[in-house]
Amino acid sequence: MTLPKAVEIREVGPRDGLQNEKVFIPTDLKVQWIDLISKTGVRHVEVSSFVSPKWIPALADHNEVFEQITRDEKITYAALVPNLKGMEGAIKQKVDEVALFISASEEHNKSNVNASIDESLQNLKAVAAAANDAGIPLRGYISTVFGSPFGDEVQLQTVKRIIDAYIEMGVSEISLGDTIGVADPVQVKAILLELLTDYDRELFALHFHDTYGRALANIFAALEMGITKYDSAIGGLGGCPYAPGASGNVSTNDLVNFLHRLGVETNIDEEKLFTATQFLQQAINRQPDSKVYKVQSQ
Amino acid sequence: MTLPKAVEIREVGPRDGLQNEKVFIPTDLKVQWIDLISKTGVRHVEVSSFVSPKWIPALADHNEVFEQITRDEKITYAALVPNLKGMEGAIKQKVDEVALFISASEEHNKSNVNASIDESLQNLKAVAAAANDAGIPLRGYISTVFGSPFGDEVQLQTVKRIIDAYIEMGVSEISLGDTIGVADPVQVKAILLELLTDYDRELFALHFHDTYGRALANIFAALEMGITKYDSAIGGLGGCPYAPGASGNVSTNDLVNFLHRLGVETNIDEEKLFTATQFLQQAINRQPDSKVYKVQSQ
Repeated sequence: MTLPKAVEIREVGPRDGLQNEKVFIPTDLKVQWIDLISKTGVRHVEVSSFVSPKWIPALADHNEVFEQITRDEKITYAALVPNLKGMEGAIKQKVDEVALFISASEEHNKSNVNASIDESLQNLKAVAAAANDAGIPLRGYISTVFGSPFGDEVQLQTVKRIIDAYIEMGVSEISLGDTIGVADPVQVKAILLELLTDYDRELFALHFHDTYGRALANIFAALEMGITKYDSAIGGLGGCPYAPGASGNVSTNDLVNFLHRLGVETNIDEEKLFTATQFLQQAINRQPDSKVYKVQSQ
Repeated sequence: MTLPKAVEIREVGPRDGLQNEKVFIPTDLKVQWIDLISKTGVRHVEVSSFVSPKWIPALADHNEVFEQITRDEKITYAALVPNLKGMEGAIKQKVDEVALFISASEEHNKSNVNASIDESLQNLKAVAAAANDAGIPLRGYISTVFGSPFGDEVQLQTVKRIIDAYIEMGVSEISLGDTIGVADPVQVKAILLELLTDYDRELFALHFHDTYGRALANIFAALEMGITKYDSAIGGLGGCPYAPGASGNVSTNDLVNFLHRLGVETNIDEEKLFTATQFLQQAINRQPDSKVYKVQSQ
C-alpha cells in the first residue's frame, strides 16, 4: 500500500458545480472566483460548458467568462462541450482542453442527451475530430460508472467499449464518474483492478460525488490503486439531479486536506483555497458543503 | 481484503452526542428518542453519563432517563461513569454496562479531568472494582489515540499502557477514539497492525469523529483490519470542543448505509433509523449532520 507521492486535482466547481445552481451567478463573480482559484496552485480548472443556455442557463455566459478570466499559463483551463456547435465556441475561446461526456448507463445517457450510447459515440467522433484538427487536447467523461440512477446495471464491458472509442477519438484522459455517489471502496478497487489490466493508470481520473459521504473512502481506495488524478469542486459544489438537495462533488477542501494529511502533494495552498471558498460562499449565499471549510471558518 | 460479515454498532448519540448540546433536551424527548433507537435493531446504546450536572448539564437527568426508557433485553444499555460516585448511581440504575474514560494525551487528560494519566488510571481502579463487585461489564474509552488537540504527540506505548491497565481492571471492550477527527486510513492501519500483534481484535471498538469528513475512510481501513465494533451517533450528533461548530461523531446513518452497501450486516433497519433521526431533528431543532439522512429527507 504505497500511495502516490503527488496527485493532480481537477477543479470542476465552476462547471460541474455551478451548472446545478438554481440562481444565476453574475459573470463578474464567476470571473473573480475563477481568478482566486487560479491562485491556489491548482493546475487544472474546468471553467464552463459550451452548451445551449436553454439546457443550462447557469452557464450561459461561457464566452464572457473565458474572455474575462486571467489565465495563468501553468494552468489548463478546460470546458465541457456537448456537440460540434459547442466545440466551435470552445475553439474560438482558445480553451486549453475540451471535455466530452457520455454515460455508461443506456437509460441515463438517453435521459441526458436523448441518444443511445452507440449514437452518442458516433456523434462525438465529429466533435473529437474538430478538437484534433484545432490541436486541442481531449478529456472524456464517463458517467454512472459505479451505478445508474435508473437502476439499470452498468456493465464494465460498456465502460471498456467507451474507453476504447474515446482512445480511438484521441482522448488522452478519461474521467470515471460516480455521478450519483453510490460507489464503495471494494467496488472502486475491483473496477480499477479490471481496467488497469487493459489500460495505463495515467489514462484515468476519478470523479466522485459525495452524496452518501463515501467519496474520501473511495478516493483512498483509488489512491491505493495508484490513481493520481481526481476531480473535485470547491465547497462541495454541485449536486445530484436524481437526489435533490443531496451533496455534490467531493469538496476540494476536504480532499486536499485529506491528501496533505496522507503526505500526498497537491500543489494547492489550503489558505488560498479557503479564500476562494469564502468568496464562493458569498456568491452563492449559503454555507458550502465542506467539513474542513466548516472547521476553518470558526 | 475480506471484510467482516457483520459488525456491531454502538449508538453513542444519547451520551457522546447530547453532552455537546447547548440546549437541554427535555427528559421525555430523550426517553422517546432512546425508545425509537431501541426499535432500530441496534444492540448497544450509550444512554447517558453519571456525571455531575455541573460538569455536563445536558445529561443532568441520567437517573430519570434510565428510569423511564423501555428496555429491550436484547440491548445493552450503557452509561459513562467518571468516578465512584457516578458508579454508585449507575449501579442503582442497573445499567447493563459501564464505560470508563481516559485520554492517551497527557495534556488532554489534564484538561479533561485535571489529572495525569497515571493518576487517572489509579483513580479508575476503584471505580472498576466497584463495577466488578456489582457484576457489571466494563468498557474503556481511550481518547485522542490518533492525535491530541494540544499538539502533544500521542505515543502508542502510552495507549498500550492504558490498554494493559484497563485489562487488569477487568475491562472487556476498549474503544479507541479519534476525538478530534484527525485520523487517516494509513495511520489507522498502522496503529491497528501494531495493537493486533499484542491484543485480540475482539477487544477493540473504534470511535471516529467526522470533523474533516474522513470517518468512513478510516472505518473502511479498520474493517480491512477485521475490526467489528464501531461507535457512532445518529444524525452525526456531538462535536469537538476544540473545533466549535465542527462535525461530531460519524453519523450512524452514513455508517450503516455504507456498511450495507459493502454487504456488511449491522442488524439495523435503515427506515427505523430514519424515523429516530427525524425525531432527533425535531428535538434539537436543526438539520442533523448526515448526508444519507439529507438524501432520505427529500
